[in-house]
Amino acid sequence: MIATENITNTVDAYLAAWNERVPERRRALVAEVFADDATYVDPARTGTGADGIDAMIGAAQDEHPGVELILAGAPDHHNTHVRFSWHLRPAGTDTVALIGHDYASVTPDGRLKDVVGFVEVPEAA
Amino acid sequence: MIATENITNTVDAYLAAWNERVPERRRALVAEVFADDATYVDPARTGTGADGIDAMIGAAQDEHPGVELILAGAPDHHNTHVRFSWHLRPAGTDTVALIGHDYASVTPDGRLKDVVGFVEVPEAA
Repeated sequence: MIATENITNTVDAYLAAWNERVPERRRALVAEVFADDATYVDPARTGTGADGIDAMIGAAQDEHPGVELILAGAPDHHNTHVRFSWHLRPAGTDTVALIGHDYASVTPDGRLKDVVGFVEVPEAA
Repeated sequence: MIATENITNTVDAYLAAWNERVPERRRALVAEVFADDATYVDPARTGTGADGIDAMIGAAQDEHPGVELILAGAPDHHNTHVRFSWHLRPAGTDTVALIGHDYASVTPDGRLKDVVGFVEVPEAA
Protein backbone atom coordinates (compact mmCIF):
# COMPACT_ATOMS: atom_id res chain seq x y z
CA MET A 1 0.00 0.00 0.00
CA ILE A 2 1.49 3.28 -1.13
CA ALA A 3 0.94 6.33 1.09
CA THR A 4 -1.84 8.62 -0.08
CA GLU A 5 0.49 11.61 0.07
CA ASN A 6 2.96 9.92 -2.29
CA ILE A 7 0.19 9.01 -4.73
CA THR A 8 -1.17 12.55 -4.66
CA ASN A 9 2.28 14.00 -5.30
CA THR A 10 2.88 11.58 -8.16
CA VAL A 11 -0.44 12.32 -9.83
CA ASP A 12 0.11 16.07 -9.45
CA ALA A 13 3.55 15.71 -11.04
CA TYR A 14 2.09 13.51 -13.80
CA LEU A 15 -0.38 16.21 -14.83
CA ALA A 16 2.35 18.84 -14.43
CA ALA A 17 4.46 16.84 -16.91
CA TRP A 18 1.64 16.90 -19.47
CA ASN A 19 1.33 20.66 -18.93
CA GLU A 20 5.05 21.50 -18.89
CA ARG A 21 6.14 22.73 -22.31
CA VAL A 22 9.75 23.51 -21.45
CA PRO A 23 11.44 20.27 -22.58
CA GLU A 24 14.06 20.02 -19.83
CA ARG A 25 11.51 20.66 -17.10
CA ARG A 26 9.09 18.19 -18.65
CA ARG A 27 11.78 15.53 -18.85
CA ALA A 28 12.61 16.05 -15.15
CA LEU A 29 8.94 15.63 -14.21
CA VAL A 30 8.69 12.48 -16.35
CA ALA A 31 11.70 11.03 -14.53
CA GLU A 32 10.07 11.84 -11.20
CA VAL A 33 6.72 10.32 -12.14
CA PHE A 34 7.40 7.25 -14.27
CA ALA A 35 9.32 4.08 -13.54
CA ASP A 36 12.25 3.62 -15.94
CA ASP A 37 10.43 0.71 -17.63
CA ALA A 38 7.00 2.33 -17.57
CA THR A 39 4.49 1.94 -20.37
CA TYR A 40 1.68 4.26 -21.43
CA VAL A 41 -1.25 3.66 -23.76
CA ASP A 42 -4.38 5.64 -24.56
CA PRO A 43 -6.66 5.58 -27.61
CA ALA A 44 -4.36 7.91 -29.57
CA ARG A 45 -0.81 7.13 -28.49
CA THR A 46 1.65 4.80 -26.79
CA GLY A 47 5.01 5.25 -25.11
CA THR A 48 7.57 2.95 -23.52
CA GLY A 49 10.17 3.92 -20.95
CA ALA A 50 10.70 7.36 -19.50
CA ASP A 51 12.42 8.60 -22.67
CA GLY A 52 9.69 7.24 -24.93
CA ILE A 53 6.94 8.64 -22.75
CA ASP A 54 8.64 12.04 -22.64
CA ALA A 55 8.84 12.10 -26.45
CA MET A 56 5.20 11.00 -26.68
CA ILE A 57 4.05 13.80 -24.37
CA GLY A 58 6.11 16.31 -26.32
CA ALA A 59 4.47 15.21 -29.57
CA ALA A 60 1.02 15.43 -27.98
CA GLN A 61 1.80 18.95 -26.79
CA ASP A 62 2.84 19.97 -30.31
CA GLU A 63 -0.46 18.61 -31.67
CA HIS A 64 -2.56 20.34 -29.02
CA PRO A 65 -1.23 23.81 -28.22
CA GLY A 66 -2.95 26.02 -25.71
CA VAL A 67 -4.58 23.36 -23.57
CA GLU A 68 -3.98 22.14 -20.02
CA LEU A 69 -4.96 19.16 -17.88
CA ILE A 70 -6.54 19.69 -14.47
CA LEU A 71 -7.09 16.95 -11.89
CA ALA A 72 -10.81 16.17 -11.41
CA GLY A 73 -11.32 14.85 -7.88
CA ALA A 74 -8.88 13.11 -5.57
CA PRO A 75 -7.00 10.07 -6.87
CA ASP A 76 -8.44 6.74 -5.71
CA HIS A 77 -5.94 4.04 -4.82
CA HIS A 78 -5.55 0.69 -3.13
CA ASN A 79 -2.80 -1.93 -3.07
CA THR A 80 -0.49 -1.00 -5.97
CA HIS A 81 -3.15 0.62 -8.16
CA VAL A 82 -4.44 4.14 -8.68
CA ARG A 83 -7.13 5.73 -10.80
CA PHE A 84 -7.85 9.40 -11.31
CA SER A 85 -9.70 11.62 -13.73
CA TRP A 86 -8.76 14.90 -15.34
CA HIS A 87 -10.27 17.61 -17.49
CA LEU A 88 -8.62 19.01 -20.59
CA ARG A 89 -9.48 22.65 -21.14
CA PRO A 90 -8.25 25.57 -23.18
CA ALA A 91 -5.59 27.05 -20.90
CA GLY A 92 -6.98 29.57 -18.45
CA THR A 93 -10.64 28.74 -19.11
CA ASP A 94 -13.22 26.62 -17.30
CA THR A 95 -14.41 24.85 -20.46
CA VAL A 96 -14.08 21.08 -20.20
CA ALA A 97 -13.20 19.92 -23.71
CA LEU A 98 -12.32 16.33 -22.81
CA ILE A 99 -12.50 14.11 -19.72
CA GLY A 100 -9.77 11.59 -19.05
CA HIS A 101 -9.81 8.53 -16.83
CA ASP A 102 -6.35 7.15 -16.14
CA TYR A 103 -5.46 3.89 -14.44
CA ALA A 104 -1.96 2.93 -13.38
CA SER A 105 0.03 0.48 -11.36
CA VAL A 106 2.40 2.03 -8.86
CA THR A 107 5.93 0.98 -7.93
CA PRO A 108 6.98 0.60 -4.28
CA ASP A 109 8.69 4.01 -4.48
CA GLY A 110 5.47 5.64 -5.67
CA ARG A 111 6.13 6.02 -9.39
CA LEU A 112 3.75 5.02 -12.18
CA LYS A 113 4.59 1.83 -14.03
CA ASP A 114 1.80 0.94 -16.47
CA VAL A 115 -0.59 3.74 -17.34
CA VAL A 116 -3.76 3.18 -19.35
CA GLY A 117 -5.67 6.30 -20.32
CA PHE A 118 -9.29 6.50 -21.45
CA VAL A 119 -10.95 9.64 -22.78
CA GLU A 120 -14.55 10.73 -22.88
CA VAL A 121 -16.15 13.67 -24.65
CA PRO A 122 -18.33 15.52 -22.13
CA GLU A 123 -22.03 15.72 -22.80
CA ALA A 124 -23.11 19.10 -24.09
CA ALA A 125 -24.23 21.26 -21.18
CA MET B 1 -8.38 -4.16 -30.88
CA ILE B 2 -11.14 -6.38 -29.54
CA ALA B 3 -14.58 -6.08 -31.13
CA THR B 4 -17.03 -3.98 -29.13
CA GLU B 5 -19.60 -6.78 -29.25
CA ASN B 6 -17.15 -9.22 -27.66
CA ILE B 7 -16.26 -6.72 -24.93
CA THR B 8 -19.91 -6.08 -24.20
CA ASN B 9 -20.64 -9.80 -23.99
CA THR B 10 -17.68 -10.37 -21.70
CA VAL B 11 -18.61 -7.54 -19.35
CA ASP B 12 -22.23 -8.72 -19.26
CA ALA B 13 -21.05 -12.24 -18.39
CA TYR B 14 -18.64 -10.83 -15.78
CA LEU B 15 -21.45 -9.10 -13.91
CA ALA B 16 -23.64 -12.18 -14.40
CA ALA B 17 -20.92 -14.23 -12.68
CA TRP B 18 -20.95 -11.91 -9.67
CA ASN B 19 -24.74 -12.21 -9.56
CA GLU B 20 -24.98 -15.97 -10.15
CA ARG B 21 -25.37 -17.79 -6.84
CA VAL B 22 -25.71 -21.30 -8.21
CA PRO B 23 -22.09 -22.50 -7.93
CA GLU B 24 -21.94 -24.59 -11.13
CA ARG B 25 -23.46 -21.81 -13.21
CA ARG B 26 -21.17 -19.24 -11.63
CA ARG B 27 -18.11 -21.39 -12.35
CA ALA B 28 -19.18 -21.71 -16.01
CA LEU B 29 -19.52 -17.94 -16.31
CA VAL B 30 -16.12 -17.44 -14.67
CA ALA B 31 -14.57 -19.81 -17.22
CA GLU B 32 -16.22 -17.86 -20.02
CA VAL B 33 -15.10 -14.47 -18.72
CA PHE B 34 -11.63 -14.90 -17.25
CA ALA B 35 -8.38 -16.04 -18.81
CA ASP B 36 -7.03 -19.15 -17.08
CA ASP B 37 -4.19 -17.12 -15.57
CA ALA B 38 -6.30 -14.09 -14.75
CA THR B 39 -5.83 -12.02 -11.62
CA TYR B 40 -8.31 -9.88 -9.73
CA VAL B 41 -7.76 -7.27 -7.04
CA ASP B 42 -10.04 -4.73 -5.36
CA PRO B 43 -9.77 -2.97 -2.00
CA ALA B 44 -11.31 -5.96 -0.15
CA ARG B 45 -10.19 -9.11 -1.96
CA THR B 46 -7.85 -10.76 -4.43
CA GLY B 47 -8.08 -13.87 -6.62
CA THR B 48 -5.72 -15.68 -8.96
CA GLY B 49 -6.72 -17.98 -11.81
CA ALA B 50 -10.26 -18.91 -12.78
CA ASP B 51 -10.60 -21.30 -9.82
CA GLY B 52 -9.28 -18.75 -7.34
CA ILE B 53 -11.49 -16.00 -8.73
CA ASP B 54 -14.53 -18.26 -8.63
CA ALA B 55 -13.86 -19.07 -4.96
CA MET B 56 -13.34 -15.37 -4.25
CA ILE B 57 -16.65 -14.41 -5.85
CA GLY B 58 -18.40 -17.19 -3.93
CA ALA B 59 -16.98 -15.89 -0.65
CA ALA B 60 -18.04 -12.33 -1.52
CA GLN B 61 -21.56 -13.56 -2.28
CA ASP B 62 -21.72 -15.30 1.10
CA GLU B 63 -20.68 -12.07 2.81
CA HIS B 64 -23.17 -9.93 0.89
CA PRO B 65 -26.47 -11.75 0.42
CA GLY B 66 -29.35 -10.11 -1.38
CA VAL B 67 -27.42 -7.70 -3.57
CA GLU B 68 -26.80 -7.49 -7.29
CA LEU B 69 -24.46 -5.66 -9.65
CA ILE B 70 -25.86 -3.70 -12.59
CA LEU B 71 -23.76 -2.27 -15.41
CA ALA B 72 -23.68 1.55 -15.33
CA GLY B 73 -23.13 2.83 -18.85
CA ALA B 74 -21.48 1.15 -21.81
CA PRO B 75 -18.00 -0.31 -21.37
CA ASP B 76 -15.22 1.89 -22.76
CA HIS B 77 -12.37 0.11 -24.52
CA HIS B 78 -9.35 0.63 -26.73
CA ASN B 79 -6.40 -1.55 -27.69
CA THR B 80 -6.40 -4.41 -25.16
CA HIS B 81 -7.99 -2.48 -22.30
CA VAL B 82 -11.50 -1.96 -21.01
CA ARG B 83 -13.08 0.03 -18.21
CA PHE B 84 -16.66 -0.02 -17.01
CA SER B 85 -18.67 0.99 -13.98
CA TRP B 86 -21.40 -0.79 -12.08
CA HIS B 87 -23.86 -0.17 -9.30
CA LEU B 88 -24.41 -2.50 -6.37
CA ARG B 89 -27.96 -2.43 -5.11
CA PRO B 90 -30.22 -4.50 -2.91
CA ALA B 91 -31.65 -7.00 -5.39
CA GLY B 92 -34.77 -5.73 -7.11
CA THR B 93 -34.42 -2.13 -5.93
CA ASP B 94 -33.11 1.05 -7.55
CA THR B 95 -31.01 2.03 -4.53
CA VAL B 96 -27.35 2.48 -5.43
CA ALA B 97 -25.43 1.28 -2.36
CA LEU B 98 -21.99 1.24 -3.95
CA ILE B 99 -20.43 2.31 -7.25
CA GLY B 100 -17.68 0.22 -8.80
CA HIS B 101 -15.14 1.19 -11.42
CA ASP B 102 -13.38 -1.81 -12.93
CA TYR B 103 -10.43 -1.76 -15.28
CA ALA B 104 -9.11 -4.84 -17.07
CA SER B 105 -6.77 -5.99 -19.78
CA VAL B 106 -8.36 -8.22 -22.39
CA THR B 107 -6.93 -11.31 -24.10
CA PRO B 108 -7.08 -11.69 -27.90
CA ASP B 109 -10.08 -14.02 -27.49
CA GLY B 110 -11.93 -11.38 -25.50
CA ARG B 111 -11.52 -12.66 -21.95
CA LEU B 112 -10.43 -10.61 -18.96
CA LYS B 113 -6.85 -11.10 -17.81
CA ASP B 114 -6.00 -8.61 -15.07
CA VAL B 115 -8.93 -6.96 -13.37
CA VAL B 116 -8.51 -4.08 -10.93
CA GLY B 117 -11.66 -2.96 -9.14
CA PHE B 118 -12.21 0.34 -7.35
CA VAL B 119 -15.27 1.18 -5.28
CA GLU B 120 -16.88 4.45 -4.35
CA VAL B 121 -19.65 5.17 -1.88
CA PRO B 122 -22.26 7.32 -3.62
CA GLU B 123 -22.90 10.77 -2.24
CA ALA B 124 -26.12 11.00 -0.26
CA ALA B 125 -28.94 12.09 -2.55
